Amino acid sequence: MTEENSRTELGQLGEFGLIDRIASRVHLTLPSSVRGIGDDAAVIDPEGLHQLITTDMLVEGVHFDLGYVPLKHLGYKAMAVNMSDVYAMNAEPRQAVVALALSNRFPVEAVDELYEGMLLACRNYGVDLVGGDTTTSRSGLVIAVTMLGAARKEDIVYRNGARDNDLLVVSGDLGGAYMGLQVLEREKSVFQESGAQPDLDGNDYILERQLKPEPRRDIIQLLKKLEVRPTSMIDVSDGLASEALHLARASGLGVRLYDDKLPIDPATYSTARTFNLDPTTCALNGGEDYELLFTVAQSDFEKIKGNPHLSIVGHMTDAASGHVLVDKQGGVHELRAQGWDALLTR
Amino acid sequence: MTEENSRTELGQLGEFGLIDRIASRVHLTLPSSVRGIGDDAAVIDPEGLHQLITTDMLVEGVHFDLGYVPLKHLGYKAMAVNMSDVYAMNAEPRQAVVALALSNRFPVEAVDELYEGMLLACRNYGVDLVGGDTTTSRSGLVIAVTMLGAARKEDIVYRNGARDNDLLVVSGDLGGAYMGLQVLEREKSVFQESGAQPDLDGNDYILERQLKPEPRRDIIQLLKKLEVRPTSMIDVSDGLASEALHLARASGLGVRLYDDKLPIDPATYSTARTFNLDPTTCALNGGEDYELLFTVAQSDFEKIKGNPHLSIVGHMTDAASGHVLVDKQGGVHELRAQGWDALLTR
Repeated sequence: MTEENSRTELGQLGEFGLIDRIASRVHLTLPSSVRGIGDDAAVIDPEGLHQLITTDMLVEGVHFDLGYVPLKHLGYKAMAVNMSDVYAMNAEPRQAVVALALSNRFPVEAVDELYEGMLLACRNYGVDLVGGDTTTSRSGLVIAVTMLGAARKEDIVYRNGARDNDLLVVSGDLGGAYMGLQVLEREKSVFQESGAQPDLDGNDYILERQLKPEPRRDIIQLLKKLEVRPTSMIDVSDGLASEALHLARASGLGVRLYDDKLPIDPATYSTARTFNLDPTTCALNGGEDYELLFTVAQSDFEKIKGNPHLSIVGHMTDAASGHVLVDKQGGVHELRAQGWDALLTR
Repeated sequence: MTEENSRTELGQLGEFGLIDRIASRVHLTLPSSVRGIGDDAAVIDPEGLHQLITTDMLVEGVHFDLGYVPLKHLGYKAMAVNMSDVYAMNAEPRQAVVALALSNRFPVEAVDELYEGMLLACRNYGVDLVGGDTTTSRSGLVIAVTMLGAARKEDIVYRNGARDNDLLVVSGDLGGAYMGLQVLEREKSVFQESGAQPDLDGNDYILERQLKPEPRRDIIQLLKKLEVRPTSMIDVSDGLASEALHLARASGLGVRLYDDKLPIDPATYSTARTFNLDPTTCALNGGEDYELLFTVAQSDFEKIKGNPHLSIVGHMTDAASGHVLVDKQGGVHELRAQGWDALLTR
């Protein structure tokens, strides 16, 4: 928040003043963005490409706590999670619209910070902000971003294209965002109880994973360079277990995940230990990693093996073999997902 | 609400159960809807047309009061207001995504009612529901609908195309939705104070204007039939005064509105009198009428005059002549808008 700076009330500006203020900071950069903010709807030239559309809503008190999430980071993340969904279709995010509900406790400067973060993400990933809706809220802040993407029809990768024996591959590492959240929650409790300033030293990596996730455009580009076309793909927002089940079920297959293949960063591992949590469980169910999980044909193995950005964590099986996790001792367990229901207990 | 029926807790169903339940009721009908609910993003084939995108967020306690708005009507309205924005570009709404935040006080049956209304609007106007996001809220219900539309590039009508001397035309009648809201608020107060059942008799028209607005697809079709192409267009969501100013400012022109030309339904008129309100003020600033306001060339006058669905309420002028309202005595007043700021006081 911006208590130390000057504070301008939203009421002073009004809805149209606020729209003008936002519009003055937005510049369209894509030829496909024919018309942006300032009409009843934005206009997009699809340029012969198929269009992708996805929406994600972030709700104060459920998805974020302004006690420790800076508004700029929140804006960045609201964009990033939607871009991640578009990359997960092997498509390119292009245009975004933002619906925002905010209460009068937010000054205009807070809205500026939020948009600063959103526009930074847009610049970083070549997306134009083309429209939105800004309204009041009686309580918390709610941000709904809808992202449009574009791709050639034949390049789009769905969840249901996996085949028996395909390798299951995940980018980056897992569980970090969840451990970052644990650290933030702990320091918040300490602060509330004792007034002690947060001790976040040495937790940079996992905090960044939680506060400023980056959608994996680089992985989409890497796969193109390697000439690997995933047979199915999804982004990891609810945890690896949940997403692997989605791919398997959508494709009418079983899946076999190997516990000892899960990519876990040393910082994630040691923090999990500090919290008396099982690092594997965090990697499987932690959520918010925004990595890409995809399947590739066995024949692509040589192109992928040893790549530091990619981990082969299992493979697809026939449906009758079920959805299983193989532990380090070779024990076989049914794979279960948590997802949103887990969030409810936050 | 559904207190008298069986109640299923959202927690029993979980996020994925809820998504499955919604998806089972949704059927894609358009060839342009390549992929709907069930992947990271929906996929649209633009079929060579430009794409329109618009979003509107409805917030409990700000835009609606569940004390008197049935959830089915709310769902219908959430779709209708977005379709209205697409028609206002002279385009056809085609696909929608819905982001929903709801608290545990809502049972699954309430979500069903909300979707029933949304899907009814979709069926009535040929729109496919292709995706969304459902999340929890700590407090009220928030609905963000994003609507995609399609049009040939050359058919799209913007706000900024009006020319000096163009006629200013509005469809239907004005102020009814606002008066419907006044009746609902009054009956709510009476009920809270005395427990008396609402007396809504004889107010059918204005209540329907508030609770179940219909986007004016018929007007778009009528204009095509009349071979009238508006030079600029906007939908009337914040009141005629506000929207006329938008057209004038976007087009770099002045505007001259005539008080005695405003179309006001007798039911709106008499209810305004009952509330000691000026019917003209209600028509100018009431909002939520979702009529279409547009400009046409003077040469189209013969095609439009006398049409019972269309009223010529004024004309555009050069910028130097300003934005004015001419009253019944010929007095000239500066035209002012209220818009969202007025909503804040609700």
